[in-house]
Amino acid sequence: MQTHHDKELADLKDKLLTMASHAESAVARAVQAVVNRDEALARQVRADDNILDQFEVAVDEMGVALLAKAPLASDLRLVVMVMKISQNLERVGDEANKIAKRARDLASEPPLKANLDIPKMAQLVLNMLKAALDAFVRRDASAARALIPQDKEVNALNKRFQNELIELMTQDPANIRRCLWLTVVSKSLERIADHAKNIAEDVVYLCEAHDIRHDASIKVK
Amino acid sequence: MQTHHDKELADLKDKLLTMASHAESAVARAVQAVVNRDEALARQVRADDNILDQFEVAVDEMGVALLAKAPLASDLRLVVMVMKISQNLERVGDEANKIAKRARDLASEPPLKANLDIPKMAQLVLNMLKAALDAFVRRDASAARALIPQDKEVNALNKRFQNELIELMTQDPANIRRCLWLTVVSKSLERIADHAKNIAEDVVYLCEAHDIRHDASIKVK
Repeated sequence: MQTHHDKELADLKDKLLTMASHAESAVARAVQAVVNRDEALARQVRADDNILDQFEVAVDEMGVALLAKAPLASDLRLVVMVMKISQNLERVGDEANKIAKRARDLASEPPLKANLDIPKMAQLVLNMLKAALDAFVRRDASAARALIPQDKEVNALNKRFQNELIELMTQDPANIRRCLWLTVVSKSLERIADHAKNIAEDVVYLCEAHDIRHDASIKVK
Repeated sequence: MQTHHDKELADLKDKLLTMASHAESAVARAVQAVVNRDEALARQVRADDNILDQFEVAVDEMGVALLAKAPLASDLRLVVMVMKISQNLERVGDEANKIAKRARDLASEPPLKANLDIPKMAQLVLNMLKAALDAFVRRDASAARALIPQDKEVNALNKRFQNELIELMTQDPANIRRCLWLTVVSKSLERIADHAKNIAEDVVYLCEAHDIRHDASIKVK
């Protein structure tokens, strides 16, 4: 039988998952705005930024209310983790917002001939985010653990993009502003991967009650 | 009479304040390494990075243990806030680490003639961080509220620095790498101010149980 308390916990998890799908959509649309030079879409992503902020506030309120009811130790950990994951998702939204801002700037100038596979990087990052949330839903520590090293791949891609952009800036000062905007896009994607990694680490902690977040053998920076 | 529970709460707060002083010191030393072109100091800041990571893990453990003991509603909110503040301080440490990395890079190249008052920006940011923690200690919502608009000042300074750096890059491509490193320093300081603002907002929430974090009238982005 489902108790009132179980219902509240289920509602909290649902809220987090709805928040996650908003965050994923914001990132996907922001990147699409960059790739398609779509100013209207960029503006829309920026207008939606407060949705994730409101989700974070709502999750915190539900979380604090649940904690006040002396939950079981395992539920307590779940609630704390949900609040941490929600903070990460809110910051994913901030990064999507930054990408959208640069999409708008980039669309206002002639296209830059740059050989950066931004959609590939975005796909990698979005897959990490989805995998982290899936691992949360299934409480699958090994799936969460498996995705942590992918952060390295994204970091390497970001580094390569940064170097290509420096090259373009050096070739022609007229490229500098646009290159800096693309630098921001690439760095924001790299930070979103960091958040996906943080979420995965929280899932492992939730499942195993062992904090791997700052384990030297796993730390990838 | 102080109960065992009060003692644990006091220990948690002490832990957070010790963590905060480590974070402030990391930022101050990282900036000093930039300004004095001090590679050894930069290396030292980077070596100390894991200290803040360990503090965050310790604060979370103490927090979860306290939450498991069915605290009073007001204490519960305090514990949740301490855990959130600690997450912000850990990220301040990450930014100090990035600044130190760029200090090392900058020291390895000839000095760049740039007219950026990095120490002034750092002082502003460190004052915000100190004021936010002071407001936490004194549970002073109005002091916390008062420092939130300072974030705007830091954002404006960052924007000015970014524009000056673009100017320098345009003048001479040989400046580009060093300008990008200084861009990172300025952006990291700006992010530290964001964390100070987050902490201040948490303090207001703690005191007033009213979530101002995403209040449109205050939001400064």
